[in-house]
Amino acid sequence: MKTPPSQRLVELGITLPPPPEPAGNYIHAVKTGNLLFLAGKADGPYIGKVGRDVTIDEAYAYARQTGIQLLGVIAHELGTIDRVTQIVKVFGLVNATDDFIEHPKVMNGCSDLLEDVFGENGRHARTSVGAGSLPGNIPVEIDMVVEFA
Amino acid sequence: MKTPPSQRLVELGITLPPPPEPAGNYIHAVKTGNLLFLAGKADGPYIGKVGRDVTIDEAYAYARQTGIQLLGVIAHELGTIDRVTQIVKVFGLVNATDDFIEHPKVMNGCSDLLEDVFGENGRHARTSVGAGSLPGNIPVEIDMVVEFA
Amino acid sequence: MKTPPSQRLVELGITLPPPPEPAGNYIHAVKTGNLLFLAGKADGPYIGKVGRDVTIDEAYAYARQTGIQLLGVIAHELGTIDRVTQIVKVFGLVNATDDFIEHPKVMNGCSDLLEDVFGENGRHARTSVGAGSLPGNIPVEIDMVVEFA
Repeated sequence: MKTPPSQRLVELGITLPPPPEPAGNYIHAVKTGNLLFLAGKADGPYIGKVGRDVTIDEAYAYARQTGIQLLGVIAHELGTIDRVTQIVKVFGLVNATDDFIEHPKVMNGCSDLLEDVFGENGRHARTSVGAGSLPGNIPVEIDMVVEFA
Repeated sequence: MKTPPSQRLVELGITLPPPPEPAGNYIHAVKTGNLLFLAGKADGPYIGKVGRDVTIDEAYAYARQTGIQLLGVIAHELGTIDRVTQIVKVFGLVNATDDFIEHPKVMNGCSDLLEDVFGENGRHARTSVGAGSLPGNIPVEIDMVVEFA
Repeated sequence: MKTPPSQRLVELGITLPPPPEPAGNYIHAVKTGNLLFLAGKADGPYIGKVGRDVTIDEAYAYARQTGIQLLGVIAHELGTIDRVTQIVKVFGLVNATDDFIEHPKVMNGCSDLLEDVFGENGRHARTSVGAGSLPGNIPVEIDMVVEFA
């Protein structure tokens, strides 16, 4: 029997934070049918461009922390992350120098977390790209589409 | 009783333009189920990079004008914007200098419009990012996913 | 009677490749309802920034080749591309110099292919933007949302 994702969080020692204040006039997530579209999020102790101010390992940790924040939003919207039936799509933006090439290594920070928590249902389609700049000079921004029951 | 969005446009003095000519081999919008996926749009009197050629206030106005163009596409596709039940997701790209950090302030130009027109149903999940470059050197490009009845 | 897309591939002399190894911890595509969300892909003989290392014509060819790779993923996921009822959304990222403006001409490489193969059902909403950088310094990355029966 599969461990419920909320139980996996306990095993991983992860406590979900409440959703942060939005940085503008938008909301964290919108439900349509059985899909949840999440706003872009960012969380972690680093600031600046990956490849210059922030290392790949730091950016990986930042992407994982951002994933935890997105899970916090999902829990807030659905009551519990156990209602997630599939992580559908992850879109990851890395605020990088223009010669940076390791975006997938950074985004694995979020993807590894999702697989750790949801198992097969956490495996998703992903697009990883380099942004020329990001709000507040955050190193990584991630949004998601999630299927829920 | 809630004012219909088409009536709100009249109150706001907004006339929706017809969809512009696509800049390439694509169409303005595709319906699937009760979702409408819109192509990226841009509209306004400014050109160039935000933070260098275009100010934040100008870019805010550009994002609002682009929002009006997107509403024009929605009206064209659905017959009337009154069929919109929810703005689901807004994706905003700001053509910015690589040290620009105020993307949310720019994108509020579109988001404030959507809330003005649709009220609570206009409040959406949003991702705002900095593009390294944009077609024709436009300062802002926005696409959307919209739920309709 | 409309020619089936798989037959159109034969007429166009196109053989679909198997899906490539993902560049990180993600999967090629996820089905939800009758939508297929595809991960970002890239394929072709060029490397580097469009407008400096790669010409528009080369990038057009790269976008077309990437489109063929995406069709390969669709065929792998659905058994055959003939189950596609509509290409819904194409999102194209061009790894470009910061003064590049011809993103639509590049992305037409993918869009022209989709129209060649699927006809009217291949015409899609599209967003074309300039990325500051892309994984492995690829010139173009494309993802899609596809409706299937």
